[in-house]
Amino acid sequence: MKKKVVLAFSGGLDTTYCAKYLSEDLGYELHTAIVNTGGFSKEELADIEKKAYELGVTSHTTLDIIEKYYAECVKYMVYGNILRNNTYPLSVSAERVFQAMAIAEHAKKVGATAVAHGSTGAGNDQVRFDVVFMIMNPGIEIITPIRDMKLSREAEIEYLKKKGVVRDWSKAAYSINVGIWGTSVGGKETLTSDKTLPESAFPTQVTKTGEEEVELEFEKGQLVGLNGKRMKSTDAIVELNKIVAPYGIGRDIHVGDTIIGIKGRVGFEAAAPMVIIKAHHTLEKHTLTKWQMYWKEQLANWYGNFVHEGQFLEPVMRNIETFLEDTQVHVTGKVKVFAAPYRFHVVGIESAHDLMSAKFGKYGEENNAWSGDDVKGFSKIFGNQTMIYHRVNEDVKG
Amino acid sequence: MKKKVVLAFSGGLDTTYCAKYLSEDLGYELHTAIVNTGGFSKEELADIEKKAYELGVTSHTTLDIIEKYYAECVKYMVYGNILRNNTYPLSVSAERVFQAMAIAEHAKKVGATAVAHGSTGAGNDQVRFDVVFMIMNPGIEIITPIRDMKLSREAEIEYLKKKGVVRDWSKAAYSINVGIWGTSVGGKETLTSDKTLPESAFPTQVTKTGEEEVELEFEKGQLVGLNGKRMKSTDAIVELNKIVAPYGIGRDIHVGDTIIGIKGRVGFEAAAPMVIIKAHHTLEKHTLTKWQMYWKEQLANWYGNFVHEGQFLEPVMRNIETFLEDTQVHVTGKVKVFAAPYRFHVVGIESAHDLMSAKFGKYGEENNAWSGDDVKGFSKIFGNQTMIYHRVNEDVKG
Amino acid sequence: MKKKVVLAFSGGLDTTYCAKYLSEDLGYELHTAIVNTGGFSKEELADIEKKAYELGVTSHTTLDIIEKYYAECVKYMVYGNILRNNTYPLSVSAERVFQAMAIAEHAKKVGATAVAHGSTGAGNDQVRFDVVFMIMNPGIEIITPIRDMKLSREAEIEYLKKKGVVRDWSKAAYSINVGIWGTSVGGKETLTSDKTLPESAFPTQVTKTGEEEVELEFEKGQLVGLNGKRMKSTDAIVELNKIVAPYGIGRDIHVGDTIIGIKGRVGFEAAAPMVIIKAHHTLEKHTLTKWQMYWKEQLANWYGNFVHEGQFLEPVMRNIETFLEDTQVHVTGKVKVFAAPYRFHVVGIESAHDLMSAKFGKYGEENNAWSGDDVKGFSKIFGNQTMIYHRVNEDVKG
Amino acid sequence: MKKKVVLAFSGGLDTTYCAKYLSEDLGYELHTAIVNTGGFSKEELADIEKKAYELGVTSHTTLDIIEKYYAECVKYMVYGNILRNNTYPLSVSAERVFQAMAIAEHAKKVGATAVAHGSTGAGNDQVRFDVVFMIMNPGIEIITPIRDMKLSREAEIEYLKKKGVVRDWSKAAYSINVGIWGTSVGGKETLTSDKTLPESAFPTQVTKTGEEEVELEFEKGQLVGLNGKRMKSTDAIVELNKIVAPYGIGRDIHVGDTIIGIKGRVGFEAAAPMVIIKAHHTLEKHTLTKWQMYWKEQLANWYGNFVHEGQFLEPVMRNIETFLEDTQVHVTGKVKVFAAPYRFHVVGIESAHDLMSAKFGKYGEENNAWSGDDVKGFSKIFGNQTMIYHRVNEDVKG
Repeated sequence: MKKKVVLAFSGGLDTTYCAKYLSEDLGYELHTAIVNTGGFSKEELADIEKKAYELGVTSHTTLDIIEKYYAECVKYMVYGNILRNNTYPLSVSAERVFQAMAIAEHAKKVGATAVAHGSTGAGNDQVRFDVVFMIMNPGIEIITPIRDMKLSREAEIEYLKKKGVVRDWSKAAYSINVGIWGTSVGGKETLTSDKTLPESAFPTQVTKTGEEEVELEFEKGQLVGLNGKRMKSTDAIVELNKIVAPYGIGRDIHVGDTIIGIKGRVGFEAAAPMVIIKAHHTLEKHTLTKWQMYWKEQLANWYGNFVHEGQFLEPVMRNIETFLEDTQVHVTGKVKVFAAPYRFHVVGIESAHDLMSAKFGKYGEENNAWSGDDVKGFSKIFGNQTMIYHRVNEDVKG
Repeated sequence: MKKKVVLAFSGGLDTTYCAKYLSEDLGYELHTAIVNTGGFSKEELADIEKKAYELGVTSHTTLDIIEKYYAECVKYMVYGNILRNNTYPLSVSAERVFQAMAIAEHAKKVGATAVAHGSTGAGNDQVRFDVVFMIMNPGIEIITPIRDMKLSREAEIEYLKKKGVVRDWSKAAYSINVGIWGTSVGGKETLTSDKTLPESAFPTQVTKTGEEEVELEFEKGQLVGLNGKRMKSTDAIVELNKIVAPYGIGRDIHVGDTIIGIKGRVGFEAAAPMVIIKAHHTLEKHTLTKWQMYWKEQLANWYGNFVHEGQFLEPVMRNIETFLEDTQVHVTGKVKVFAAPYRFHVVGIESAHDLMSAKFGKYGEENNAWSGDDVKGFSKIFGNQTMIYHRVNEDVKG
Repeated sequence: MKKKVVLAFSGGLDTTYCAKYLSEDLGYELHTAIVNTGGFSKEELADIEKKAYELGVTSHTTLDIIEKYYAECVKYMVYGNILRNNTYPLSVSAERVFQAMAIAEHAKKVGATAVAHGSTGAGNDQVRFDVVFMIMNPGIEIITPIRDMKLSREAEIEYLKKKGVVRDWSKAAYSINVGIWGTSVGGKETLTSDKTLPESAFPTQVTKTGEEEVELEFEKGQLVGLNGKRMKSTDAIVELNKIVAPYGIGRDIHVGDTIIGIKGRVGFEAAAPMVIIKAHHTLEKHTLTKWQMYWKEQLANWYGNFVHEGQFLEPVMRNIETFLEDTQVHVTGKVKVFAAPYRFHVVGIESAHDLMSAKFGKYGEENNAWSGDDVKGFSKIFGNQTMIYHRVNEDVKG
Repeated sequence: MKKKVVLAFSGGLDTTYCAKYLSEDLGYELHTAIVNTGGFSKEELADIEKKAYELGVTSHTTLDIIEKYYAECVKYMVYGNILRNNTYPLSVSAERVFQAMAIAEHAKKVGATAVAHGSTGAGNDQVRFDVVFMIMNPGIEIITPIRDMKLSREAEIEYLKKKGVVRDWSKAAYSINVGIWGTSVGGKETLTSDKTLPESAFPTQVTKTGEEEVELEFEKGQLVGLNGKRMKSTDAIVELNKIVAPYGIGRDIHVGDTIIGIKGRVGFEAAAPMVIIKAHHTLEKHTLTKWQMYWKEQLANWYGNFVHEGQFLEPVMRNIETFLEDTQVHVTGKVKVFAAPYRFHVVGIESAHDLMSAKFGKYGEENNAWSGDDVKGFSKIFGNQTMIYHRVNEDVKG
């Protein structure tokens, strides 16, 4: 009986190569799977399935995990207003881990003794896949032909030609990765430090020219409505993106530390994620206390880092999620956002939990709940230790 | 002999009231002072001096501390990329503390037994002034007539009329505070949660319509040149602001926690500060390690908080400055920034210290300095504890 | 109708003074209350009640909140291994806040328009009481005769004599505060920096001379058994203290920052708390991951600080509790502790969740789950960024 | 011409095996080196040198780095009061990194193309050596025969016998590692979770029975004197250890996370380090502000973690050292420590920089520098946000 392998398959050159190599050169019974985290249309998924069966796979499976991905990760990234290096909503990082986990589950179900992925040796994805497999399928063999053999595209094409697989493998100018939480764009300019992506590199072109106000409704930290219409969060993200992406907003270049220690640069467009995070963050500024904000930021920063580095299964991540969820109990209200070509900003918020209540005082104008003497006493005690410090140490100096 | 008081004097209604009240009602020998942190022109300062002497002050002094303010605070806010709540460059907060310190020094020099400021009881400034005075002039009397008597504008105007001081006291629609590190704009919309400032509220109107690229040159973290021309940092900030402010960039509304516990909202325009911080931060992403970035962020966040809360004299602030300065030794290079109406972004950087060097690998493309097997081994060890955790605890369940 | 006041009453000189002053000088209808957090025996409570009625109070109430105090605070201090400045289990700090909250609730029930406490103006307790009352009974009057009038003991005794209250008010050599989570001891030596408390100052004298091993059983982080006998946690704390306190362990002097900015020094004996925390911490070292430990420590440190500073009602405290509780799911097992005069140490632990499982490797001896090459690869990637950093910057130097 | 290898050589079974294997089986020109961080006497070093030459090495070098190790690492661990997991002074971890760096320098000087160490595959040391070599000697070959071949002691002895090296290789009951900053003790009991080391396992037996007070003098955070006698810090550490180690203090078992993800347990005796850290920490509690203590702890905790994990060369470590050093400017004074068999405690401190100055107030007794009203005002503002939070959210419910 043949040993079984599950291959994470996208229908591209690398994973097509892997498919042939695993089944024909290594003699595995090949089970391919594609995991959808919001980046593929039905047509694209059908096409990938068709391609898989054309390669002779024993089975091909489409794993749709959008809701799971939202409920177990995206949600927390909203709670945490997570932007890596204050810039990047972790569009690819997070979904790659969920894809790996779906493949790992699938491999268990199929009874595979090996899993395979098409990652190269120079990126983050290899680690995300490896780490998840090693944790969820301990002892399973991990096969990574592209990484191990460092094959050129030409060599792969040549190999596939010999195997009778002839397709148009011409490379796109930019490598694009689409998901519900944003699209990454890499290539050419992002490989060096000094240039930015040209307008044409972005999948969503700017087609809206006017101005628009959108109202986002949050309930306990989750986006549950748009412009007065309630909908489930995943739908709201997709809908919001349709509204705001054509303004060309939420684009930037992220420069950061890869898991393997080198610096990496990647462009992205993430219109809905950026708008949601800024809106959510503003709502929190009104409804949470200073120290809730402070500690949320600490933990969310770490959460984002571990999502990025493929450490999603570390148990501290569950503890952080519990914390973040607990902070959201009053993060309920409406946020108005202004959008125009290449820019957006939050207009304001409305919330029954708004701590900026005129009942207690108006910043800079009115103090109802305390007196000037209260503040004078406060200032005295607030600066007491620093006063003592300076006096003690001036005395020493003499 | 009369007791002396030093009054922080701006020539506005509140401090004019204080001047008369202190000298005539309380019988002090009155010494006024205005501290310039980049917000006043020579003409304005001369006008304030004229007004002071018209009120019969014994002395009026202009304390120009722009260079000191830059060298002892702004510089560190650049090193730390400090944006309160990821939004506000602390334009007012930081300068108020330096104004208080300058007044405190002046009071010592003059031999005053009291200091006075015109703050209300509902803002941050009262605490900043009080805390600094209590630390630097322990035992000195702090007089705050506006806060203590909660006078209305009308009552103040009436009082001054009786004292023979008749001026046009009509209130501006928005309260503006200008300094080298940005301009705050408060009033009307910022007093509630749901509206943003109208275009007309911003002092700098949008007069540039095209696009422009500016090159910022940094040396050990400090801005030292613009578009190829070297200049001292304070000049570079002023120059850069002239270039980018007319695009209407660097504007936003900050919502945050006041020192006295209420939420406050304030608009601002801070074109040069925002561009400098984003440019500097990008240069750091290329030249510092992941953990340098991590710890800088922790400490800078705290530094910003303490600047905001008037705790600048806490000794830990000096320790943090030492840390921040020490991280900047390689933050040298050029950063290109693209500006257009209402938006800007960093184009890219050039630095001899850029860690994104193709010599060691290209993100996602090439690994020269390690092998696929190295990464496999890394992943195994990197996920080892999480793997053990899950297996141990599954065994318990199972 | 007379206005009502609730006074936190202990039967000591200060609160006896307050009782007379409030009812006779200020004319209040006086309701006294004593809150028991484990520091009073039934006899003592009966005696305090008797004294209260002798002073003519309208009502006296004993509020027993030991279980509530454990469930809502002590439990979390165990989860967090909380030792202020790595020394002090917050014996007094935590219970004072719970006493204030119980008084605040009682004041609501009684319909009081004022609350009173006997704190001086130089300690932490005044802030703890004030803050809790201001939050829970906003607008209520807070009366603090001792703090406000700065009376000497002699003046208080004289006043009481005039009111017909004659008792032996001779001061104990040391001021003692007993509760379920430890006993504080202040006086004489603790008022200066250079001396330690004499043996005789400690309430529990050393009466055991041998050695003993005690087994503590934890379930999800809570102490649920001793030496094989299951019991509820509050009982277990009391029982354990009976076993270990006569060894003179868990004594130390805490030096730290008061809420009001001065440094304070206080001795304590907290035998059971110290043993429980060390035992619990060791069990966590075996059952939690590195990053769970790291983040627990961060949050617990803050939790302890806010308990100390009377900020227990800040909502972030609830979020931190949720986090801490979530980390305890596997902190189940037995811990053996060795006790002898003046010292104790943890012998070892047993837990089904112990991550130190020989199945995966033995530290320094055996690696079953990975190879030497895995570690070599790990090391290479682990040090990759630092290697790049040094090479890039050496190249610059040249 | 033969290729050169530098071997970290201790004269034990593993490195003796390596010596023969490298020179005879692999044909290298063998240069051995031993790095002394305070663990070896002159006699021991001479004996190791003799053994090296008997094995036919081309050169053997003793690298004495005690002063360097103190100045570049131990000093900062004192500044940071570093105890891993609040227990272990990193006795072995820190010195291993310095040994690796010394070997790395030596390999450059010798012109070696390879370095070798005798680590197994199950400990931390392998990573510490690997990481340092990869950073300091990029491209050099790292040879680790014991780790790679997983040889048993018997096989090694057999091999050496064949090579004509016959010695008494009988294994000590416990593996001991001595250095200036403490001695680790591993074996038998430390390999499981439930037992502690027997008295006999500790190299220093308890020979003192009385009680003793020792005075430590610190200057800017460094130990510079003992019992009134000034001496350099390394001498003071050694002297202090002679005084206190015979009391059997500073012993414990550390349970923690290895770099490779498993849990490890190790006993240690570190009498002087523990006394110095506790004394230094107490002096800091008196001379530093609350927030200096807070941030020192954060950074020192990380510093300790990176020392432990062999990441000493990460540039953030230099930044942290700068911070720590900057905090020590006033940590000057004398600390009295009481020692008796199996226990010690700090008696008290004397310092011109002591912030616990009666001039400003006495904890719990006297407030000279502020009034009761000041504290009342402070409490009101201090609890203001929490009050608002509760009232806003009760209104919503209600």
